[in-house]
Amino acid sequence: MVNIDYFNNRRTIREFSNKEIPAGLISQIISDALRAPTCGNMQLYSVVVTRNKDLREQLAKCHFNQPASTGAPIIMTVCADFNRFVKWCEESGADHGFDNFQSFVAAATDAIIFTQQIVTIAEMHGLGTCYLGTVTYNAPQISEILELPKRVVPVASLAVGYPAEPLPELVERLGIEGVLHEEKYHDYSKEDITAIFKGKEEFEDNKRYVKENDKPSLASVFTDIRYPKKNNEIFSKIYADYIRRQGFEIP
Amino acid sequence: MVNIDYFNNRRTIREFSNKEIPAGLISQIISDALRAPTCGNMQLYSVVVTRNKDLREQLAKCHFNQPASTGAPIIMTVCADFNRFVKWCEESGADHGFDNFQSFVAAATDAIIFTQQIVTIAEMHGLGTCYLGTVTYNAPQISEILELPKRVVPVASLAVGYPAEPLPELVERLGIEGVLHEEKYHDYSKEDITAIFKGKEEFEDNKRYVKENDKPSLASVFTDIRYPKKNNEIFSKIYADYIRRQGFEIP
Repeated sequence: MVNIDYFNNRRTIREFSNKEIPAGLISQIISDALRAPTCGNMQLYSVVVTRNKDLREQLAKCHFNQPASTGAPIIMTVCADFNRFVKWCEESGADHGFDNFQSFVAAATDAIIFTQQIVTIAEMHGLGTCYLGTVTYNAPQISEILELPKRVVPVASLAVGYPAEPLPELVERLGIEGVLHEEKYHDYSKEDITAIFKGKEEFEDNKRYVKENDKPSLASVFTDIRYPKKNNEIFSKIYADYIRRQGFEIP
Repeated sequence: MVNIDYFNNRRTIREFSNKEIPAGLISQIISDALRAPTCGNMQLYSVVVTRNKDLREQLAKCHFNQPASTGAPIIMTVCADFNRFVKWCEESGADHGFDNFQSFVAAATDAIIFTQQIVTIAEMHGLGTCYLGTVTYNAPQISEILELPKRVVPVASLAVGYPAEPLPELVERLGIEGVLHEEKYHDYSKEDITAIFKGKEEFEDNKRYVKENDKPSLASVFTDIRYPKKNNEIFSKIYADYIRRQGFEIP
């Protein structure tokens, strides 16, 4: 039994302890996650569970060796997967038409829903997790390391292990008034934006980032340092080209 | 307190009872879901909660009036949202570069993770949910109904309400051997495919679909009737064009 209060208290874990993960726990988590919602019950995803040290080090490089990726005993790479389903269609003599953007979107959505189900179940079993957003930046290299065939595209990577103590502090989040729209979308006024992001700007760690990076505002830490236009454009091209090479045409 | 056994027993709900949803429950669920993992703590999502009958009927049309969409007391439309964040950057005088595919992918991933968190919390509170995959097919119309501004793209729709009794039977799923790869991806042999999809083909409801549709195989129900190539290509173009119009260039 777990407490539903888990949800408003969950946090991402980037440092892991040496505590061993019991044999069978990962399989149990993945089995339970198979009941996650899925498009047309097609289950258009696969999960690669990597424990081997050498392979993990290769994967961590693709994640720019961020500490969560180098320190976790397991890296899971969840992929949008039309390979299995298409092979089944072919074996059945059915003429498929899944080589397009719509099919990629359906499979990617399936895979992310499945990943989040894994995250919740794993955390309810006491494990800690961290999404590695770098998965889409270096998808071609990850693909090579994990030997992904055509019609398989990595969409989410997780570092998984038991959390190191003490647990990190809860970080700030926007309040519900920042994200909820009743009936229709109500666009934000200047005053709304100021009110919604006030807590974020006043969060101590964020004030420190602004100072350390010698920036005029917290927003410019995001635009100039963390997610600069140039990088976004490079990674846009890499991922779109890779999706096409893997067999999904983008019109 | 909830039982962690919820996960291997969850099912999608497409028929809803008249039981009223307590005031405040939806807000509580969304507030709790705000702790879901999010890219760089940017929370690149919004949720539109539609209860108004007229608006729901307009939305249901976009979802081809599938029963879950016409019968639910609430339709939630979760959007990839860079509008709020960009407005904050502009107010802060920060020069953003989020008008690209990478930024769309980051926001869409954020939004789907957030949606699945809402689903889990809602279901643990006794509600039933159904993803409406049609959201990407008719995104332009949904966008018009909900008055979505630039940089906002719907990526997941949910029908939400208390389940009608009796609950639907659990449907079949592929077993873990169908989706788990240890260390690297191990491609499927012809024999693997036969073994993995055997349970699906032998599931009574699926046998009935094949017969009712007068098809030679279950796979051809998917390729010829449910997800034909022609439709996939039409919806690919509609969604890709719409994503571009909303401000995300796809190279």
